[in-house]
Amino acid sequence: MSGVRELTVDLGDRSYPIYIGEGLLDEAGKLLANHGISKKSPLLIITDANVAERHLAHLETVLREGGFGVTSAVIPAGEGSKSLSQLEKLVGVALENGLDRKSAIVALGGGVVGDLAGFVAASYMRGINFVQIPTTILAHDSSVGGKVAVNHPLAKNIIGAFHQPELVLYDLSTLQTLPERDVKAGLSEVVKHGLIWDAEFVSWCDDNAEKLLALDPEALGYALYKGCSVKAAVVSRDERENDLRAILNLGHTIGHALEAVAGYGELLHGEAIAIGMVGSARLAVKLGAPEEVYGVTKRVLSRVGLPVRLPAHLDTDEIMRAMMHDKKFQEGAITFIVPVAIGKVEINKSVSTALIRDIVEQLKQEAV
Amino acid sequence: MSGVRELTVDLGDRSYPIYIGEGLLDEAGKLLANHGISKKSPLLIITDANVAERHLAHLETVLREGGFGVTSAVIPAGEGSKSLSQLEKLVGVALENGLDRKSAIVALGGGVVGDLAGFVAASYMRGINFVQIPTTILAHDSSVGGKVAVNHPLAKNIIGAFHQPELVLYDLSTLQTLPERDVKAGLSEVVKHGLIWDAEFVSWCDDNAEKLLALDPEALGYALYKGCSVKAAVVSRDERENDLRAILNLGHTIGHALEAVAGYGELLHGEAIAIGMVGSARLAVKLGAPEEVYGVTKRVLSRVGLPVRLPAHLDTDEIMRAMMHDKKFQEGAITFIVPVAIGKVEINKSVSTALIRDIVEQLKQEAV
Ligand SMILES: NC(=O)c1ccc[n+]([C@@H]2O[C@H](COP(=O)([O-])OP(=O)(O)OC[C@H]3O[C@@H](n4cnc5c(N)ncnc54)[C@H](O)[C@@H]3O)[C@@H](O)[C@H]2O)c1
Ligand SMILES: NC(=O)c1ccc[n+]([C@@H]2O[C@H](COP(=O)([O-])OP(=O)(O)OC[C@H]3O[C@@H](n4cnc5c(N)ncnc54)[C@H](O)[C@@H]3O)[C@@H](O)[C@H]2O)c1
Ligand SMILES: [Zn+2]
Ligand SMILES: [Zn+2]
Repeated sequence: MSGVRELTVDLGDRSYPIYIGEGLLDEAGKLLANHGISKKSPLLIITDANVAERHLAHLETVLREGGFGVTSAVIPAGEGSKSLSQLEKLVGVALENGLDRKSAIVALGGGVVGDLAGFVAASYMRGINFVQIPTTILAHDSSVGGKVAVNHPLAKNIIGAFHQPELVLYDLSTLQTLPERDVKAGLSEVVKHGLIWDAEFVSWCDDNAEKLLALDPEALGYALYKGCSVKAAVVSRDERENDLRAILNLGHTIGHALEAVAGYGELLHGEAIAIGMVGSARLAVKLGAPEEVYGVTKRVLSRVGLPVRLPAHLDTDEIMRAMMHDKKFQEGAITFIVPVAIGKVEINKSVSTALIRDIVEQLKQEAV
Repeated sequence: MSGVRELTVDLGDRSYPIYIGEGLLDEAGKLLANHGISKKSPLLIITDANVAERHLAHLETVLREGGFGVTSAVIPAGEGSKSLSQLEKLVGVALENGLDRKSAIVALGGGVVGDLAGFVAASYMRGINFVQIPTTILAHDSSVGGKVAVNHPLAKNIIGAFHQPELVLYDLSTLQTLPERDVKAGLSEVVKHGLIWDAEFVSWCDDNAEKLLALDPEALGYALYKGCSVKAAVVSRDERENDLRAILNLGHTIGHALEAVAGYGELLHGEAIAIGMVGSARLAVKLGAPEEVYGVTKRVLSRVGLPVRLPAHLDTDEIMRAMMHDKKFQEGAITFIVPVAIGKVEINKSVSTALIRDIVEQLKQEAV
């Protein structure tokens, strides 16, 4: 295990480590055992069809050789699987395979698998152990912070819990099979973590965009380490999203609305929030931030291959309505995360909807 | 509010009060406001059809007069409503009515409403405020301790969370409309709390069975106060069911299996665990406890009108199989709560299934 990076998400007695490195899957048995995952109780791997094809047999073999009792459940790939009906199916599989209170759920996959499997782990018998093995770049984000959830027909991520994993095991090798579009979408949250917290890292992304797109292991390892570190720093200061954690929603108020209106699927999460971050940068400049906030945000996102223009066929009224269902509307007031400089944002609790409507319109005209 | 009893469930920063008294519904507005329930965010009352008919208009009026924004959702009465599909419907109602992170869910009803509404509160936006207004005797049990859940077709209460309410408001007047069978079933858990913790209270129940069955307010208020106090004492020592809390499962290993095999509905929860407690008492005597453990257990349960014999048509093999799915089977070993004296139980982690099979057979022959 040369070149393995390690960091700790600091949450008191719910703290956990993240390991990032090439070939880490081979060490899964040892790492799970070291972090208290029981070999006496059956363990359930949850993954999706795309990931199963490429990496499931490998993980099953390693864990069985390590002495674990392994069963697997393969869900259809895609956001549609983050549903209560999948939850019900997976709980059925867990019951049929005798999972008990000492068992663990292992999520092998991207954010969809992580969020769904995490909610299974959070709610099965009111909470059992959970391990994240992320296989997408985006999942560097979803695997830190313990937010797990499924969707409701009327709103995304609305049914969920906070449930921290025992450990996260990030094998960079698994990322080599990731489709190009998902590579780019995943880099969106990486850039976001720079934009909210670390100007130097934003400029590193600017300089290393090509290496990242080529999945250069050293660059990728560093970027995921930095991304996870920023997220960990934020959530360890505010586990339950009382205040600070809201800054992680940069680009998400618009982004979530776009995903909902486009229909889950047309826009990937990372693409939607890239457009949302350009919107936030535009808003920032309107509210007095330096012009470069807009310029740099847009340039870096473009360099890593992300869309910065809002698809013109999406209806502005519908987008505005979708935002009204968003969790960030508390007691009628609309809260928006607004950059004040590159690497620094503030939580603005009184952005007028009229202003946001203007931004949405302008995003449809964005030069690319 | 004369004669109101109050107790605190002691859980650190999740501590909460229970108020027990006649006519407390009239004070709901004041009590909710005093315990931090927001008037700015909409509040959702969840209740079932039977309770709605009798008590919903009253509660809505009181809360509206108190300045709360109230909407209500009425679910069908009965265990069948503790399902993921009801959860999905209620989350839809919550979204349509604009419930946000500062909103509260108010459960007005028995254990079914409390468990389901509690899981809605636990999972909606990953957790919002929750208030319990129990209207059954059994709910003195379900409203203390924060266990909330829905059922899966293969197992009861298997999908859930720990989610503590902000307060519990127990209006004895609402109990006057409770059907007799539910009165008796509710007293089962009252007696259980005596059997595991308080011999004196068991003998008080023995002496006051008739007053309890007649819903005498003073006797009922005292019994519910004692029942809640025992439960609160246990859960405050072990919120997450690591060890001690298991003693609350007296009668439940057999009881849950009976409910599952009889089909939810034929046996009420309280009835099933009454039979289960007689079984545990039989087991206790076999394992060396004094004979009176069996005699007193059976007598008190009979006096409050509960069944003590297992319906002969229920298949022993099926009952045994149903127990195998039970959460109390950890890593293959079977755990049973066994009385050692009246008012005192122990957790026995190695009861053989052969012995339990004998007990199940004997329970079918129990003299009534
Ligand atoms: N919990 C959180 O804090 C959090 C944060 C951000 C996003 N999310 C959630 O994450 C989800 C998006 O995550 P995602 O982008 O990883 O989506 P995803 O899990 O759907 O993965 C994207 C696609 O890549 C495929 N795939 C995954 N790994 C692969 C691999 N190694 N090789 C080949 N194909 C692979 C998947 O099958 C899928 O088709 C959304 O549901 C979003 O809500 C959650
Ligand atoms: N969470 C816990 O810790 C816990 C503990 C024990 C039991 N439970 C759960 O509680 C449930 C059983 O609770 P329950 O017995 O209260 O069942 P319930 O909620 O179904 O109520 C019993 C019946 O009485 C009716 N009813 C309720 N209040 C009434 C009133 N005041 N007047 C007239 N009718 C009324 C209901 O409509 C229902 O038909 C089970 O699902 C069980 O799993 C949970
Ligand atoms: Zn995101
Ligand atoms: Zn019970």
